[in-house]
Amino acid sequence: MPAFRVELGPGSHDVHVGPGLLARLGALTLRAGLNPGRAALVTDANVAPLYAAAVDDALRAAGFIATVIEVPAGEASKSLDALAGLYDRLTAAELDRTSPVFALGGGVIGDLAGFAAATYLRGLPLIQIPTTLVAQVDSALGGKTAVNHRAAKNLIGAFYQPRLIVADTATLTTLPAREFREGLGEVIKYGAIMDAPFIAWLETAMPTILAREAAPLEAMVERSLRHKAYVVANDEREGGLRKILNFGHTLGHALEASAGYGSYLHGEAVAIGMVAAARLSARYAGLSAGEASRLERLIEASRLPTRMPPGWENDTFLRALRLDKKRAGDAVEFVLLERLGQALTRKLSFDEIVSLG
Amino acid sequence: MPAFRVELGPGSHDVHVGPGLLARLGALTLRAGLNPGRAALVTDANVAPLYAAAVDDALRAAGFIATVIEVPAGEASKSLDALAGLYDRLTAAELDRTSPVFALGGGVIGDLAGFAAATYLRGLPLIQIPTTLVAQVDSALGGKTAVNHRAAKNLIGAFYQPRLIVADTATLTTLPAREFREGLGEVIKYGAIMDAPFIAWLETAMPTILAREAAPLEAMVERSLRHKAYVVANDEREGGLRKILNFGHTLGHALEASAGYGSYLHGEAVAIGMVAAARLSARYAGLSAGEASRLERLIEASRLPTRMPPGWENDTFLRALRLDKKRAGDAVEFVLLERLGQALTRKLSFDEIVSLG
Repeated sequence: MPAFRVELGPGSHDVHVGPGLLARLGALTLRAGLNPGRAALVTDANVAPLYAAAVDDALRAAGFIATVIEVPAGEASKSLDALAGLYDRLTAAELDRTSPVFALGGGVIGDLAGFAAATYLRGLPLIQIPTTLVAQVDSALGGKTAVNHRAAKNLIGAFYQPRLIVADTATLTTLPAREFREGLGEVIKYGAIMDAPFIAWLETAMPTILAREAAPLEAMVERSLRHKAYVVANDEREGGLRKILNFGHTLGHALEASAGYGSYLHGEAVAIGMVAAARLSARYAGLSAGEASRLERLIEASRLPTRMPPGWENDTFLRALRLDKKRAGDAVEFVLLERLGQALTRKLSFDEIVSLG
Repeated sequence: MPAFRVELGPGSHDVHVGPGLLARLGALTLRAGLNPGRAALVTDANVAPLYAAAVDDALRAAGFIATVIEVPAGEASKSLDALAGLYDRLTAAELDRTSPVFALGGGVIGDLAGFAAATYLRGLPLIQIPTTLVAQVDSALGGKTAVNHRAAKNLIGAFYQPRLIVADTATLTTLPAREFREGLGEVIKYGAIMDAPFIAWLETAMPTILAREAAPLEAMVERSLRHKAYVVANDEREGGLRKILNFGHTLGHALEASAGYGSYLHGEAVAIGMVAAARLSARYAGLSAGEASRLERLIEASRLPTRMPPGWENDTFLRALRLDKKRAGDAVEFVLLERLGQALTRKLSFDEIVSLG
């Protein structure tokens, strides 16, 4: 069961990856320096029936008396109203400043419970226990927490590092197939932007990954998290290097917004965005056509979509593109690949971006 | 116009103190490294008619186009609902991550706008412009921001350092007398816990301070802020040293709660709490009776109350005492004085605390 440390000064913390770690959660939490006593376990209605009792038992065995707080599954639980409801339940749990908050679930739970932990009593210790592939390889690490505002997703939030991340890769076996595949998009992204040998490994291992065999899942999640940790450790507040994590995301976000949220899962839109960004990379950043199609074939092998839908280049899409956070005038700072495993950012005009259609 | 730096690693920032600084706010903000462009100026209905236009002009002259956001004066503006309303108005102001939020007002505005700045887009640059004496000598410095929950004051919040503090001491001349005196309690506290010569200076200067003469106001605010900065720089997250800032507050808070919020201003209750704590210090920490009464006379000279009201030692008071955040079993970690200018903390039982009655 590999463990490594994310180096973030006072926000440094350990990451544990492997199958069956939920049973060891109490011991790992004690080892991270947390004090036994009252705690909160925040989870959602999908995850609770599968894992809440086991987690609660593991915590109790180590002296953590957790109040289990279940919220509805899905993005609606990231509203300000849902946050206010969570604050109410945290007050009922009679926590003090040393009481840990355990976030057991996917990205929604990590964001919501993380933001509540960041702001309740000006900050409670937070333990991230991601149970989806997207959360395990991406959102649980890096300290981003947030809730939505009707004006925009993740508008209200905080950078707040967890005291510990425990990614039990056995939980990935209960994930619906489409959600599992979604996470593969983020995995492939790490290979594309910073680790060409990982691409080669994924090409070989993909059948065993899709079969959710324990060993390749563990290896894949650990390697992805180490890459995320490296990027975050070198750019905690998203000033420079962290931007490369947006590979595939500029077009992906615009596609999500223009197709209507819900048509594509985030990771599906990013997969399509990566294929498009690879073609733009061939035109503007020196990526070879062979490498671009190799990336596309790997995404296909992971059973993610690779092609923009018919009529994608519409006004809604262009409007969404212009709302990109990285917009500067008539251009966007776009993440491109020089070669597989090596990313750069370049200003591309909106015309250049849609030219590949 | 004295300026000094609060050393907090990446949260380090300058503090400017002096009369007439509002007119220089734009220049000071540029000098602090903020980029001209869109901004938000959050203030309340008491302060806006006095200073919002002048501040807005000063900002515009330096290229900051501020949306003025006015909230009702008073503690009710620190609710979660009011916070949600402020988020709405920040979205309407079309800020980006580099847009500064200026908090112009007393403690309520500093806490509310500070927390909104800490959490909008995961953190906007914050400029504190305190206009009350309590805010200038205490709450604007240290990074504490918060809103209230019906279960407790300041339950939801963040440690978030401003990029700059500008304390224009001329604004103190428009403060209602009772609010002005309230701040003197916090000023005297710095003398009591860490600066005996400041006590001597205040004894001499008190008549000119009460007359709100420019020079002593500036000297008093600057010296207070330097003390607060020293304590915060050595204990940003309230692990140890910062506790001494609670001198007078344990009994003060219990008095506020038991007398009904609103009967005493916070600073008035703290003044009474300091006199009581000085008497406890004479009994348990070696403070001489002469020094205890010298502190009491200074508080009297500042026209703050010094005596518990009749019947103070009631059940509500004792219940409030037991809710103290620093409670440990049947005792509280209590701030006492060894001598004027030197504080220590000691566990006192509830019996010992109320024994002075």
